[in-house]
Amino acid sequence: MQSRFISISEYPKGTPSRDIFQLQEQDLPDLGEGEVRVRNTWLSVDPYMRGRMSGQRTYIDPFELNAPMEGAAVGEVIESRSERLKEGDKVSHMGGWRDIAQLPDKAVQPLPNLDLPDQAYLGVLGMPGMTAWAGLNRVAELQQGDNVLVSAASGAVGSLAVQLAKAKGGTVVGIAGAKEKLEWLESMGIKAVSYRDKEAQQLTADLKDACPEGFDVYYENVGGVCLEAALNCLRRDARIAVCGMIAHYNETQPAPGPSNLAALIMHRARMQGFIVADHWQHYAQFLDEVGPRVAKGEIEHEETVVEGLEKTPDAFLQLFEGANRGKMVVKL
Amino acid sequence: MQSRFISISEYPKGTPSRDIFQLQEQDLPDLGEGEVRVRNTWLSVDPYMRGRMSGQRTYIDPFELNAPMEGAAVGEVIESRSERLKEGDKVSHMGGWRDIAQLPDKAVQPLPNLDLPDQAYLGVLGMPGMTAWAGLNRVAELQQGDNVLVSAASGAVGSLAVQLAKAKGGTVVGIAGAKEKLEWLESMGIKAVSYRDKEAQQLTADLKDACPEGFDVYYENVGGVCLEAALNCLRRDARIAVCGMIAHYNETQPAPGPSNLAALIMHRARMQGFIVADHWQHYAQFLDEVGPRVAKGEIEHEETVVEGLEKTPDAFLQLFEGANRGKMVVKL
Repeated sequence: MQSRFISISEYPKGTPSRDIFQLQEQDLPDLGEGEVRVRNTWLSVDPYMRGRMSGQRTYIDPFELNAPMEGAAVGEVIESRSERLKEGDKVSHMGGWRDIAQLPDKAVQPLPNLDLPDQAYLGVLGMPGMTAWAGLNRVAELQQGDNVLVSAASGAVGSLAVQLAKAKGGTVVGIAGAKEKLEWLESMGIKAVSYRDKEAQQLTADLKDACPEGFDVYYENVGGVCLEAALNCLRRDARIAVCGMIAHYNETQPAPGPSNLAALIMHRARMQGFIVADHWQHYAQFLDEVGPRVAKGEIEHEETVVEGLEKTPDAFLQLFEGANRGKMVVKL
Repeated sequence: MQSRFISISEYPKGTPSRDIFQLQEQDLPDLGEGEVRVRNTWLSVDPYMRGRMSGQRTYIDPFELNAPMEGAAVGEVIESRSERLKEGDKVSHMGGWRDIAQLPDKAVQPLPNLDLPDQAYLGVLGMPGMTAWAGLNRVAELQQGDNVLVSAASGAVGSLAVQLAKAKGGTVVGIAGAKEKLEWLESMGIKAVSYRDKEAQQLTADLKDACPEGFDVYYENVGGVCLEAALNCLRRDARIAVCGMIAHYNETQPAPGPSNLAALIMHRARMQGFIVADHWQHYAQFLDEVGPRVAKGEIEHEETVVEGLEKTPDAFLQLFEGANRGKMVVKL
């Protein structure tokens, strides 16, 4: 059986160009004992994947050149030599960026039994959702009534973070760019602040307008001017959960960091980086807490859909242009 | 009775010039019920005092212009209307930058009964020592065997931090500038690295040479190039205790921060600011743990002594020129 997949031909510097991505085909080997074949129906593209294109080991191995890339995907088992999984089972796994994945069954999880579209397990109930939940609860130790600031607040992670934070009763402010993203945030009861064309000083002033008391928690996805402004608006004992710094992922030269890190001293604040994989043993707790609320429609989750395996690189590159609202997914 | 004191006539921008400091005299009012008069014998000058010269409230009120400045001091009670304290008692308090202090007795603590010179309670067993201990133990949660990096490692705080860290058995590296400071560190079994004339890249390489495994704890007193290099040398789950950032205290324009804060994500690292005053309820524990070791000579503590009340501003300004090894104190 043939599998079509996307690979990269070189490790890019700066913003990856479209032409480093190739669509290739390979013959799959015979199915081994304990393996399954999955026809992928949805693929995930996520900002963290840029880090795997650096050619260097960070917290995870780099993508191999000219080999199938990896990423979260959901699909349906079409052939099984596993006792755990049978033909027709809907599953999630990390064999994305391809149409047919062949994997050992221990690398494949059946989808939970909730009344939700399959691709929800790539977004609000998948890695991005878990990232929002773990960052707020396990890293920033979110408390009832906390004032919370979220950057990239309409993205896959941010859009859940603002809603989880809002449910705790404090003032929640989201930073975003495009007008429709700001409107979406406002429609959810989130105070929306644009970062566009602003220096840190102006963004600081706008954040102080939105929440004069300051923030107990900052959920950081962006870096750059957002971090500098946020540091100016902390309350005492604030916690910053550093999930990502997308502003810097495509930089070819290191850009200077915030000039006001000493704010951490004045506010006795804590800034902590995290990787969602380290918290995965709590995924079941996350699913128990958040899954039913998503199924009941209490939590909104938007997605931006691109169709076709060959369009996966385009979907990925659009993440860095701020083109997505909610989770960016590829439908096969 | 007259008291001579130092005041500032304006709030300086950048490095304070010597001529904003004045020596003044005032008549003390009659001693009130519960008050004591103390003849100060030793005054403390500390980098944090620069923050009180900004004219703005930070975590503490600014100094009042043309009024006696404040700071840690030790001295002897010369007159008392307190039941707790009597003439001849040796005490510590915050009525420094003057020769005679008049204070309510609740603002005055008797010196502990250890066989040590009085000025030790301004340094190794005073605020700087407590700052080292609290930052390592309560903020960075120092563990047995941790590899520890300390910047400004021969200063009042740093010189105790390296010794407390060394006692935990891991590799301890201290960053300092002058040759004699580096030699002092090496003589204590600390690996010494100079920051002088180095960009972050070179300092990173030198820190990696000194401790190839990387650091579990970074005790931060400096900021600037030291922080940037330290972020490049963290181990997983590292903790950075941010005590101060003396490199930035006299800046008139905000200087850019480190370009590599995303290292916090990769290493799941935590960076936490703190103020020693918040930990003061543990002072007795600190004194119990560290006091006897100092008295037995197991912990070295150096001091740089300047003589005369009128020289207090000079002693203070020398802190920013790296002139002191160990605690800078003024003898009256």
